Amino acid sequence: MKFCSECATPVVVQIPADDTRERFVCPACGTIHYQNPKMVVGSIPVWEQDGVVRVLLCKRAIEPRYGYWTLPAGFMENNETTGQAAQRETEEEAGANIQLHELFSILNVPHVHQVHLFYRATLLDLDYKAGVESLEVQMFAEKDIPWDDIAFPTVSHTLKFLFADLAKIRDGAGSYGVHALDIFKPMRSAT
Amino acid sequence: MKFCSECATPVVVQIPADDTRERFVCPACGTIHYQNPKMVVGSIPVWEQDGVVRVLLCKRAIEPRYGYWTLPAGFMENNETTGQAAQRETEEEAGANIQLHELFSILNVPHVHQVHLFYRATLLDLDYKAGVESLEVQMFAEKDIPWDDIAFPTVSHTLKFLFADLAKIRDGAGSYGVHALDIFKPMRSAT
Repeated sequence: MKFCSECATPVVVQIPADDTRERFVCPACGTIHYQNPKMVVGSIPVWEQDGVVRVLLCKRAIEPRYGYWTLPAGFMENNETTGQAAQRETEEEAGANIQLHELFSILNVPHVHQVHLFYRATLLDLDYKAGVESLEVQMFAEKDIPWDDIAFPTVSHTLKFLFADLAKIRDGAGSYGVHALDIFKPMRSAT
Repeated sequence: MKFCSECATPVVVQIPADDTRERFVCPACGTIHYQNPKMVVGSIPVWEQDGVVRVLLCKRAIEPRYGYWTLPAGFMENNETTGQAAQRETEEEAGANIQLHELFSILNVPHVHQVHLFYRATLLDLDYKAGVESLEVQMFAEKDIPWDDIAFPTVSHTLKFLFADLAKIRDGAGSYGVHALDIFKPMRSAT
């Protein structure tokens, strides 16, 4: 941020009164321009047939991570709920008709100022199709998940949480949980 | 938003290519200024003694809702996790030392572009004290909660979820859940 979005004066970086952090502040009109984390919200669309659970993944047609696989998800918009955001992103990216269930995972990614939320969902039919942000959309059983080609750690962790819960449920030893994880930036090698 | 924060040109409102929503767009440098919901994160600090559970509330020293009671909470900052945000706000507003537990409630407030998250917490001692944004800080048993003077619906719903879970746990019939609620703007009366 270089200029005040209210009066076009160049902003300065300073700690406002009664604050403890540096902010972009307008020296002319006094507006404090706070910057806060964004929420990325998506779904885990599941189809179960003949005892096999398959999850719908999208191959990204956009950067970052073009060509890698992801769950349908995207930035939450103003004037919608997290559930509406999950449903909208699933429709936009995968053309999929889903019934949304409970919140399943919440993953902090503080170094990119994001919080990712994923909701469990059931596919209502198999009429899915790639949206403009996807190259293709495909269902995968656990053994076929392209683990090395998953776009983001929040997605691979969420898929692992899902299959772990499903294994427990299959053994009659559990139910779906709400899974929380903080993903910090990997330390760079010193060499 | 009136001016581009990158180049100070007056922005226009338009739907960018491959988008479906109106955004503030700079006609000079092309920057799209997305606006997204913010997260308000807090804790539910609890102290149990002689079988009575008390919750720590703060009387607000700032607008909006000056003089009303709230759980310690505030806007999540960049570079922190939701758990760190809950712990920081509890320290800042109530001077309270807590052990943070699981996520307890997630409440959408789409008409103000906010998502509120509250984490369960245990007070580690009674050395709490009002921070600069609080007039006073006090513990309340369920029967003493000032229900008519709670600052925000997300706080009163979270407190009700808490006491309902505690009643179930006392009866040996449950455990803490993760509670989700969407709070839409009340319809205005037609008269």
